[in-house]
This record gives sequence, C-alpha cells and structure tokens, in this order.
Amino acid sequence: MAHTIPLTPLAATLPDTVPFVGPEAQERKRGRPFRARIGANENGFGPSPAAVAAMRAAAPEMWKYCDPENHELKAALAARYRISPAEFAIGEGIDGLLGLTVRLFVEPGQAVVTSLGAYPTFNYHVAGFGGRLVTVPYRQDREDLEGLLEAVRREEAPLVYLANPDNPMGSWWPAGDVAAFIDALPPMTMLVLDEAYGETAPDGTMPPLDTSRPNVIRMRTFSKAYGLAGLRCGYAIGHPETVRAYDKVRNHFGMTRMAQAAALAALSDGDHLASVIAQTAACRVRIGEIARGNGLSPLPSATNFVAIDCGRDGAFALAVMQGLIARDVFVRKTMAPGLDRTIRISAGPDPEIDLFEEMLPQALAEAGRLD
Amino acid sequence: MAHTIPLTPLAATLPDTVPFVGPEAQERKRGRPFRARIGANENGFGPSPAAVAAMRAAAPEMWKYCDPENHELKAALAARYRISPAEFAIGEGIDGLLGLTVRLFVEPGQAVVTSLGAYPTFNYHVAGFGGRLVTVPYRQDREDLEGLLEAVRREEAPLVYLANPDNPMGSWWPAGDVAAFIDALPPMTMLVLDEAYGETAPDGTMPPLDTSRPNVIRMRTFSKAYGLAGLRCGYAIGHPETVRAYDKVRNHFGMTRMAQAAALAALSDGDHLASVIAQTAACRVRIGEIARGNGLSPLPSATNFVAIDCGRDGAFALAVMQGLIARDVFVRKTMAPGLDRTIRISAGPDPEIDLFEEMLPQALAEAGRLD
Repeated sequence: MAHTIPLTPLAATLPDTVPFVGPEAQERKRGRPFRARIGANENGFGPSPAAVAAMRAAAPEMWKYCDPENHELKAALAARYRISPAEFAIGEGIDGLLGLTVRLFVEPGQAVVTSLGAYPTFNYHVAGFGGRLVTVPYRQDREDLEGLLEAVRREEAPLVYLANPDNPMGSWWPAGDVAAFIDALPPMTMLVLDEAYGETAPDGTMPPLDTSRPNVIRMRTFSKAYGLAGLRCGYAIGHPETVRAYDKVRNHFGMTRMAQAAALAALSDGDHLASVIAQTAACRVRIGEIARGNGLSPLPSATNFVAIDCGRDGAFALAVMQGLIARDVFVRKTMAPGLDRTIRISAGPDPEIDLFEEMLPQALAEAGRLD
Repeated sequence: MAHTIPLTPLAATLPDTVPFVGPEAQERKRGRPFRARIGANENGFGPSPAAVAAMRAAAPEMWKYCDPENHELKAALAARYRISPAEFAIGEGIDGLLGLTVRLFVEPGQAVVTSLGAYPTFNYHVAGFGGRLVTVPYRQDREDLEGLLEAVRREEAPLVYLANPDNPMGSWWPAGDVAAFIDALPPMTMLVLDEAYGETAPDGTMPPLDTSRPNVIRMRTFSKAYGLAGLRCGYAIGHPETVRAYDKVRNHFGMTRMAQAAALAALSDGDHLASVIAQTAACRVRIGEIARGNGLSPLPSATNFVAIDCGRDGAFALAVMQGLIARDVFVRKTMAPGLDRTIRISAGPDPEIDLFEEMLPQALAEAGRLD
C-alpha cells in the first residue's frame, strides 16, 4: 500500500507518526480527562491578562491575514533586546523555525549533531529533510559540549543543536561555557541554540546577544514563560543575513494574526512575566520537595519543569509515569538511555501539584510491586 | 554577502522575497491606513459570531498546545461531508498544506504544472523545493484543462495545480469538466485541486467527493467564506493513505489551539455561512454594476472577488490599481500576460464598496491621463 501514491523516495521512507502523543489523544483513549496537565512543559500559570484581552479584542478581526512582515512584533522585540528588527525571524513556534532551519542548512545525507535524548521534534525535522542524525550522549545529565564539538568536527556537520537550558533534563550551562562552545565551532557549522526556557534560567545562563556571527541562530518562544504555546509564536535571533534566509522558505502568511496580537501584548506585560517566573521557581522547589519526600532525587532545573530521578531503571520510571497517568496526572518521561530513569513534571498551579503530591506515593508503590 | 552563511545550494539560489506584499506594509509605506481593504480576497463580512465567541472563550487556554491529531475538527468535517475523519489532513491554511504537498511529491528538478498567472504562493513552494515550474496560459480567462493535461503528459509531472473556482480570475469549470480532467490524469501525477473559493461557487462547480483516487488532493479552507484567514486553518480531503502522508512531514503541533476552536464553531454556524454567501453574491453583482457604470467589463465570478477587465493593457490596469491605492482603496491585480488587463476587487461590506465606487472614476481618469 505504501507506494500506491507517488511520494518522493525520501518521503516514502518517513514514518507517519507524531513526535509526541498529545494529552488529548491520551484522554480520548482513557475515556476521561486528566485532572493535572503537567506533562508537556506548558505554562499552567497562563498568559498575561493583557494578552488575553488582546486576543479577545482581535477575535472579530480574524478575517484579515496577518502582516507577513511581522513588523510590529519585530519592532517590539528589537526594543526589548536593544538590537535591530532585522536581527529577528518570526515563526510558528520554535518547532516551525527548526524545520525551516534544517531545510535551509542541511542536504540529504549530511550529518546533523544533537544530544541523545534531546528534542525529538528537531530530530523529526532532520529525518524529514533527509539529514543523518549523529547523537552524543549526555554527561552527568547535561549536554556534552566537548562531545558535541568533537562530533561536529568529525562529521563536518552543517548543523548542530544545543538547548540551554536543556529539555528534557532541565540542566544548563553557564553563559561562558556556551560562549566558548560558539567560539570553537567551525564557521561552516550552523548552531541552533534553543533558548525556549531562557526566561526561567538563572542570570548568567544565556550568553549576551551577539549577532555578529552568521553561524549562530538563537531560538526563543512565547510558548513557555509567556504561556502562549497554543498560539505558535517563536522567534530566531541572529545575524541579519542569517535571519533573512528564513524569508526564502517560510510560509509568509503562516503566522496567525491572533498570535501577533497576543505576543505583542504579552511582551508589554513585564509584571506578569516576572510573576510567572517567580511562581515557576517556587513550584520547582515544591516539586523537588515532593520528590525528596518520596525518596526520589529531583534534578536541578533552569526550566519550567523538574526531571525527577526515580532512582532505578527506565522500566521503573516508566511504571511510575504510567501510574501517575492512570491517576489522572499527565506527565511525561524521556526514553533515552541514561536519561530514562527520570520522569518530568511541569510547574503549574497548586491544585495540579497537589494532585501530583497525592498520587505519586500510590504510583511509586504500584511500580514497586511490578518487579 | 549571500554566501557567508552555509545555506544549501538550493536555498542559496532562492530569493528572500514575499510572494505578496501585505496591505500593512503598504500602509506603513504610505504613512496612513487604507479605508477599504478589498484586495486580498479576505472576507470583510467577518467570521461567525459563534467563532468570535469561541475565540474569546478559548483565549485563557492558549497556554496549552493544540491537539496535534486535530481530532474534533476532523470529526466535525467528517460529519459535514459524510466521509471518514481519516480522509482529512488539517494544516496551517492551504498555503501551509501546499508547501507540504510539494515536499511530499516533488523532487528537485521535476516538473510541476500550473497555469500562468495562477497562485503565486504555490509557485513559491515549488521553487522552494527545487521543482521546475511549467506554466500553461489561461484560455478565455479560465485555466486551460486540455493544456494542463498536455503539459502533465509531456513533462511526466508528478504534480499539477488546478484552482476551481480560480484565483485570480474568479472563473470556474463545471464539475463534469473537472471530473473528466481527473479521469484523464496519469495515475502517477498528483492533482492539487484548490477549492478555497468553493463555498461561493454555483452548485455543480465542485465534483462530488470521491476519495478513491490516491492521486487527488482537494484543498479547502476557513480563510474565505468562513472569514478566518488570520487564524490559518485549511484542510485537505483525499484518499486516507494520501492524507496520512502529511503526517510524515507536517509540524504536528503547528496548528493553533485558537484556530481549532474557531473553525469548529464556524463549522457549526450554517446560518452565518449562508448569510456570507448571500452577501458575497450580492456584492459581486454590485461590483459588476460599478465596473459597467464606468465602462469596464466585470468577469463572471464564482469566488468572493470580481476581476474587472479595464479594457486596455496591463500598464493601464496597473495605473488604475495604483490610483485606487492612492485613494485608500486596497486592491490587487495580477501581472501575468493576458490576465494583467484586470484588477481584482474583493467582496466586502457596503462602506468599503462605496469608497471603491467613489474612487474608481477618479482612478480611471487619472490613469487615462497617464498615456
């Protein structure tokens, strides 16, 4: 059956599976909703009231296409970061921008370097454009900067992916280490530095913005700290010539006018952002305490989630996750070797964390009995 | 400068220009807003109040990613069309789906057949994936079905594009002719049948849905009759195996949750849709009368716009369009040889058409003086 439609040879080899199964699909399968949605690193503290108001005001205007130049949003970002609007590309979330990045810089068969267990959606795009994924294991739950560099050089890779802070482990490198990594990159290797979780990281995690290097693209988003994952608005920061390349391949009218309006309003509400960051930090502490209270080890986190080391193997952690899901707590875990002993809990409002706290002992007990 | 970043050879050849300049960019250049926005085939009658209410209700929930399976929307579309949810792919507007279509079915260097002057965004995607565009001139302001078929056979094209009703001319073929076109297609040629304007076409324009052929993909959208262009929600209807192929390459979490909510509500409001269709039909008549009242020839239209033959050459029509724009009336025209004698006016609310009616004689007089 697979070849009755005339797909390209590359497309014919690709699986038709989703990188992540969404919680809604699980709810349909379970036949009932989750009571805690703390599995997808979404921000349950929600968007700024200013953004909500902007969305409501913009609703009747949705008959209009977006401004394909994203002029106002670029101007606002430029003012925020004190750089030029020409140093931004706007896209349908970092996910969308990652796809365009692979398309711009990777030819079929070329090596693309990332960490083993890092962002599956990036890997999906690499496969989708025929790139050859080269993975480097984490070291002590952090991406291995030395190892990534070594792989880049060995493979003459045109593209390397680094998330700082990291997903799925929540770990991070100080800015100086990332800057040294950038300095050491071959000039013909593009770095995608995914800073989706940058807002919740300690000061000194993100290197100063320096758009002088054409081979560095930094990705940021309104999906995490700004609480607008469902509107798909991410942006790339880089050398003007580099970000302009996205205009060669992007879907120019692909942004929603709603996302443009909401992002602009969200950007203007620094108080809400500060509040979310504070709530996230407090919630990370609380998740850590719950973990330790159950004899587990929370990993340090610079993100809006906490990876909890369940202290045993991947099968045990999987059983713990399944036990939580069975108890209406949506959480996720990575399956990557070495990292798979952890489950991942997103920061969120107290009632959802309360339910996690209530259900974790039961899930652990059940998982223990499965041996 | 163009090669200081390590683009792929294909990407390096692509221009970084937008297929259409948006009205907002023109407004920034002009330094003042348009007073009539009737140039982009948007639906100024606006979305259903039910859709607006759904958007407003959904706004605080935008911290959640979309359901990547688009389950509810597919179910609602399936109920509407009395086919299976498995016969739909959902995407970020037809624009987004067209990009994925080219990616799935066209290898660099292969021929892709379309009409000369047909949808520029499709052409943009073909170029973006290295396809070789083969164009067939319109005949009597309609896409030339015979000519398209001949080109498909001659070029052994893996993909052909046909819009019915057509943009930019507003013309259409009866369903029987389209069905005959489909029957005559080589089985290894995919047809993209763009039915973005299907809702406003006369009965008997769209062939009955028949998803038995794997090589036909029909594209529809919430951007036109449903008035949700700014939310980016289109869908493809086809053989289950064909539409499943989009899962190989689409950005699974790329839909906005807002678009899902709004489209679902819009679909449920048949009264509003009927009202928009009626208003559009009446407005087409009025635009035609205005054209004739100024000695011009409106072309018959099955869409939400009217192409007006300005009766002279492309330079004259261009001057008319520029005269309207200078008078705060946003309209567009095609530059394609043979079609370029027309300007294109979108149906819209009376005040915008009133302004068009007021300004057209001035624009014509001014254009006439330019000789």
